[in-house]
Amino acid sequence: MQKKTSVSQTVWRLRRGMDRRFRLGHPWVYSNELLDSPKGIEPGECVELQDASGRFLARGFGNPSSLIAFRSLTRNPDHLEPTSKKSILEALRRAKVLRFQLGFEGFSYRLFYGEADGLAGLVIDRFATLAGGQVLVIQAHSAGADGILESLPGILEAWTKETYGNPIWDQTSILFRNDLSIRKLEGLAEETPEVIQSALHEDLKSTKILIRPVSGQKPLVFRVNLWEGQKTGFFLDQYSNIQLASLRFEGLVGNSIRILDLCSYVGQWGAQLSSVFQAQGRRVEVLAVDSSPQALEFAKQNVEAQGAHCHTLKANVLKDLGALETGSFDLVICDPPAFIKNRKDIPTGTHAYLQLATKAMRWVRPQGGLVFCSCSALLTEEALLQVLSKASQRNVKPIRWVGRGSQSPDHPLLTEFPEGRYLKAWIGIA
Amino acid sequence: MQKKTSVSQTVWRLRRGMDRRFRLGHPWVYSNELLDSPKGIEPGECVELQDASGRFLARGFGNPSSLIAFRSLTRNPDHLEPTSKKSILEALRRAKVLRFQLGFEGFSYRLFYGEADGLAGLVIDRFATLAGGQVLVIQAHSAGADGILESLPGILEAWTKETYGNPIWDQTSILFRNDLSIRKLEGLAEETPEVIQSALHEDLKSTKILIRPVSGQKPLVFRVNLWEGQKTGFFLDQYSNIQLASLRFEGLVGNSIRILDLCSYVGQWGAQLSSVFQAQGRRVEVLAVDSSPQALEFAKQNVEAQGAHCHTLKANVLKDLGALETGSFDLVICDPPAFIKNRKDIPTGTHAYLQLATKAMRWVRPQGGLVFCSCSALLTEEALLQVLSKASQRNVKPIRWVGRGSQSPDHPLLTEFPEGRYLKAWIGIA
Repeated sequence: MQKKTSVSQTVWRLRRGMDRRFRLGHPWVYSNELLDSPKGIEPGECVELQDASGRFLARGFGNPSSLIAFRSLTRNPDHLEPTSKKSILEALRRAKVLRFQLGFEGFSYRLFYGEADGLAGLVIDRFATLAGGQVLVIQAHSAGADGILESLPGILEAWTKETYGNPIWDQTSILFRNDLSIRKLEGLAEETPEVIQSALHEDLKSTKILIRPVSGQKPLVFRVNLWEGQKTGFFLDQYSNIQLASLRFEGLVGNSIRILDLCSYVGQWGAQLSSVFQAQGRRVEVLAVDSSPQALEFAKQNVEAQGAHCHTLKANVLKDLGALETGSFDLVICDPPAFIKNRKDIPTGTHAYLQLATKAMRWVRPQGGLVFCSCSALLTEEALLQVLSKASQRNVKPIRWVGRGSQSPDHPLLTEFPEGRYLKAWIGIA
Repeated sequence: MQKKTSVSQTVWRLRRGMDRRFRLGHPWVYSNELLDSPKGIEPGECVELQDASGRFLARGFGNPSSLIAFRSLTRNPDHLEPTSKKSILEALRRAKVLRFQLGFEGFSYRLFYGEADGLAGLVIDRFATLAGGQVLVIQAHSAGADGILESLPGILEAWTKETYGNPIWDQTSILFRNDLSIRKLEGLAEETPEVIQSALHEDLKSTKILIRPVSGQKPLVFRVNLWEGQKTGFFLDQYSNIQLASLRFEGLVGNSIRILDLCSYVGQWGAQLSSVFQAQGRRVEVLAVDSSPQALEFAKQNVEAQGAHCHTLKANVLKDLGALETGSFDLVICDPPAFIKNRKDIPTGTHAYLQLATKAMRWVRPQGGLVFCSCSALLTEEALLQVLSKASQRNVKPIRWVGRGSQSPDHPLLTEFPEGRYLKAWIGIA
């Protein structure tokens, strides 16, 4: 099976009839779809993929240790070295053009989103700091992405200098956040965070970052823990959903708005919505609930920086909130962590979503607003809608849904790649 | 089977085990789910629904002539007369509160959207006119809704006077638009439009209406044909998708923006987007393509009222556009009529969507924007995504999708009622 091509590349072939999904644009091939069991390379090396008749299909990351044996990088036969420094820099440039066109230039944004940007499994979040620099937080979800980590600092230097200018490079920190359990599926270790480069005066456990406002141009400042906070330290993926919610809720009746922010993390929803309502001259009071004391401490600071009041409650949202009064909030936000992380979690995770939705609907006042999110890729949209229907029936409270969201546009979607569409958000009026 | 209750109502019972979907909140019961074949009433009369054990489930419209034998109006056993004038006025008030909260008060909006607003099959669009009055366009999609048409003018008089004041009632036209082939499924005739009440000086074939702008507060004026234009004369359901597209496209590069608006109808997409770009000081040129000469005439006026140039082309978008140049538009909008109207249309309709998407992706320039909509409820979202994937593969052009929309919030969704979620819109960057 391991023929070498002119660029000395291992060649893997698909089994006959196993090319349909791939030809429709899906970037992955599973090991059982290959003619022979994959071998002959180190995990993450580049291989060429051919169909059963030996026709070129793609070049991409091979991984004999993963169920996902192949991740496409290019379908262009003339593109011989998709992981060269030049190719990676080109991919970063193309990703940047999209983010700038979408208006993220001066703010924090996801610069690179794996498959959608052409380098499978590589994630780069670019956080603009209040101090005037940037922190680039990098994650490798695939062995292939892991293999190019070493070359990234040099490429990011070139990218930063051409994009933001040389002085910004002197104020750039680079952090690898490979503390991801999902890496085990690729045969990779779950690592502790690693600072590759550190800008002076930047404490990565307490950094002030600039987040794009959902309305207007003045950035919101958030204190975050990029070192050990969830995912890369901040959920950039919710920006567009908060914007959608703010559009739907700006006409909410009342001079004083009470927001319940469940699983608040560092208070992104509360702070952005407070900023919108305060600009209308209304008073806002946020109750942020989370299980992490540090997240709550930051949430309080971040929300109060917008002029709102913020109370915090350290609690498990599924167990500890019996004392909250029915109908006592104008807005209830549910943005929980993924309750479903793998297939075996589906029944219990779905039940957890149902419990949370049932309570959330109880706490919102009549005509109040409700946001319900799920970032579990394994919870289908239909399953989520059934959860919301059941919760609504349990409360004898029909909700009129007035918006549905997805992940923020700096996390672009490919129609061909359902695995990349994980975030769902439904916005309703009680 | 026809027992009479205390309010002299016919009672229908579900077959054992047929109550699951209904108990989850779905508002319909099919005739084969009933214990006995439905009879004993005129189509559209109110009946009581019980489960197999004789427990009250709901009151609603019964129709022995339709596959949808029962449409729920209330699940509250104490709500004895859900079609009384008082109940209907209450439903209109509740619907209005939602629209006003969503910010539609001074503009045109869908006041009432059938099942989602509690009166199954009744649609009311409220068009604010430039002349300072309003036109209420009413459609009855169910025999039950048809049965209450007679009482509506009186109820709408009360509603208008309490909502907008007495003088507006003197400038109110009411138009029944029951030229709907779908009425046959309910045993109803497809009728010609009927003016119930006409305000002075209002020509319903050429009315200037006020549409909410996607940005700012100044209404856009559209000339429309409420008398015989598609549906109720204007597609209010696209408002939120145009808003989403404008947010994603406002950073599109170029001082001059060329928009291809396929199936333009009266130019809603082109006019709204032109308004946004012109406000940024950019020149806009729209090519509106439609099969209706009158729609194109109105489109030209409506787009040019925003200061843009508008060319029009009478054509079948699937057949006649061979001469358009590849990559020659900054934005391509595809908002076709429903290609799938019933199950037997699914294969040919899906193919038509694929043809159109393939061409649309060809005409958009690199980094340009693309909007693809489907208002066919029978085209699932997954099927639409497959269409877009295929089109993208045919063009060897991956599209990064940066937004997904649904119908405007004045057409609220019920999670329990998938039949009411018909509109899908995907927004991408080439």
